[in-house]
Amino acid sequence: MNIPDSIRIFADEGRGEEFLSNIWGRRPVFTCTIGNTETAKIPGLSAAGAVPEITDRTPAADMELLLYGRCRSIEGVPVTPDGIPTPAIITMSALQLTDMPTMVVNGGTFVRPQTPYVDLGGQGGSDIRTTGPAVQGTEEVFGRAVQLGRSLAGMSDYLVLGESVAGGTTTALAVLAALGYDADGKVSSSLPKNPHPLKAEVVQRAISDSGLEEDPHPLEAIEAVGDPMIPAAAGLAVGAASRIPVLLSGGTQMCAVLAVVKGIDPSVLGNLALGTTKWIIDDRESDILDLVAQCAQVPVLASGLNFSDSRYHGLRVYEEGVVKEGVGAGGSTIAAVASSGGDLDMEVMLSRIEENYQGLCHGR
Amino acid sequence: MNIPDSIRIFADEGRGEEFLSNIWGRRPVFTCTIGNTETAKIPGLSAAGAVPEITDRTPAADMELLLYGRCRSIEGVPVTPDGIPTPAIITMSALQLTDMPTMVVNGGTFVRPQTPYVDLGGQGGSDIRTTGPAVQGTEEVFGRAVQLGRSLAGMSDYLVLGESVAGGTTTALAVLAALGYDADGKVSSSLPKNPHPLKAEVVQRAISDSGLEEDPHPLEAIEAVGDPMIPAAAGLAVGAASRIPVLLSGGTQMCAVLAVVKGIDPSVLGNLALGTTKWIIDDRESDILDLVAQCAQVPVLASGLNFSDSRYHGLRVYEEGVVKEGVGAGGSTIAAVASSGGDLDMEVMLSRIEENYQGLCHGR
Repeated sequence: MNIPDSIRIFADEGRGEEFLSNIWGRRPVFTCTIGNTETAKIPGLSAAGAVPEITDRTPAADMELLLYGRCRSIEGVPVTPDGIPTPAIITMSALQLTDMPTMVVNGGTFVRPQTPYVDLGGQGGSDIRTTGPAVQGTEEVFGRAVQLGRSLAGMSDYLVLGESVAGGTTTALAVLAALGYDADGKVSSSLPKNPHPLKAEVVQRAISDSGLEEDPHPLEAIEAVGDPMIPAAAGLAVGAASRIPVLLSGGTQMCAVLAVVKGIDPSVLGNLALGTTKWIIDDRESDILDLVAQCAQVPVLASGLNFSDSRYHGLRVYEEGVVKEGVGAGGSTIAAVASSGGDLDMEVMLSRIEENYQGLCHGR
Repeated sequence: MNIPDSIRIFADEGRGEEFLSNIWGRRPVFTCTIGNTETAKIPGLSAAGAVPEITDRTPAADMELLLYGRCRSIEGVPVTPDGIPTPAIITMSALQLTDMPTMVVNGGTFVRPQTPYVDLGGQGGSDIRTTGPAVQGTEEVFGRAVQLGRSLAGMSDYLVLGESVAGGTTTALAVLAALGYDADGKVSSSLPKNPHPLKAEVVQRAISDSGLEEDPHPLEAIEAVGDPMIPAAAGLAVGAASRIPVLLSGGTQMCAVLAVVKGIDPSVLGNLALGTTKWIIDDRESDILDLVAQCAQVPVLASGLNFSDSRYHGLRVYEEGVVKEGVGAGGSTIAAVASSGGDLDMEVMLSRIEENYQGLCHGR
């Protein structure tokens, strides 16, 4: 196996190479776990949706894009307030190029996707600042997700585990903080200017009002201050990684998933890697490698997609730190490269992404 | 490939052997599509549930049995009014012995299973005798199921497609009749004495009040007089069978699914077989082979499970025509034999079934 330039390895290079060689040329299943929260609607916190009211529909619309190549729950595609389109355009391109089977998982949403999706009995989450649980029934959702992860492990060589939940870095920060990690100023953002002070304020208030004790159980931390994606994705990882490799695909939100997995079943950590984009690795306003290092010795893989020379402004701005990651964009790209045995190069990826961008965004 | 005595082939022996050789030693995914209808509660029609009120919970409880080995939505297990337990005990045994990955599909229910399940946006069905649609949104459910079938085809060598819907032979009869098949007196029953006159009366009233025209589209026929399992299972079959073999697993209900598939996409029929039990084949009060012959030249495979010598009364009565089939009991047994390359024999199956029976039914 010659690792191409399109994949870079961080954190633990030896285990990163070992993980890659285990998945090289094998057949993955791509899952994307979605969630909604009222937290996402706090003004200034998330860029996943042009206006707060539409953020509820962003995860559903992302899933429709992955499965049907067009959104059904909204016109056009999800965009940031500046009109920059969803990273699901990257993911859909990776899935298309390798015909990767895909399963949508509903962690808990206000708007259900108009696609087939696996339900785990979860509901949308509250604003984490309010008293009472932020996420209902985390134990049940986690348990069902473990079962689903076991089933999917029987259907695939490895699992790629993406997410779409607006406002998710703030709830990830809250869960990490509740579990005792030093995450302040380290989670990423879909906005070019990361609103760290606002996130810290929201999280501080959420935790102080939560009644959480020191060293809570991970599911209690999620119930108090998390989002509905986290117990579902963590359960999937625990269920699948006892049998097959699992690539946690996302930015710093996946660090919260990793921390929950570690807190519940550290025996599976050796079968995990984190897959993201170089935009997250290179981001100076967050620190994914520090978060992973605090948590567990798992390798971090980054896709080397580069949009500098794209024909489209809406893609070139990714190089300036807009959007960066989401919907498993980085992990699905890595899995596409791996399942092609390294043959898929980033020019072909960019060309497919631009084609999809052109078709969906009318070449803006 | 030496076909063991535990599998018998009917209808088209050559194609049956060809189908079996295509799946021999390969990895299936088992799906079970569930549905509820008000039709199931017409007194005397169905044995799937001790009393009509509990029939709503039967499909959910069956799915819990398959995934967790115990029911959550009811105490004990679903039984007929005479206390004979659900055929899901057979299916769970086949799945356990081969560690077959399983996916629950919700066609449309009043009671959701307390398991992970794929949702297709469907709802529970009305009593087919009432005016107005019996099943809502069949086109949407069918379309999503096609998409799911395509995804599952990327995760497995072949698909085993079971069902659990109480009262399903009556709605199957209604759909077959609406599509012009001569099915009167030919659908099976979970009751030892098949209530054909009652079924015929219900179906006649349903069709005459439905406003259906001659030669309706299959989805219109389901919408008017069917149940929510049929569009979901038919969509799964159409989506998957364009790529991989599909074993329609059930009794005469699967003939309605077959008829719908034929009416919508006959190009996939060559990749289909029907898998059932010898209790259905040998049943003198129904005629599955005639129904299949009217519809399409697909092979019929039957598991040769024999409960004559069982230690338990509740299993021995299967030989007298009680229950007979359901929850993919026949197809899952055939798939278990095929995936073992013929090694799994029926004594081992019976012994596992008895063990599960003992544990779940306290040896009644």
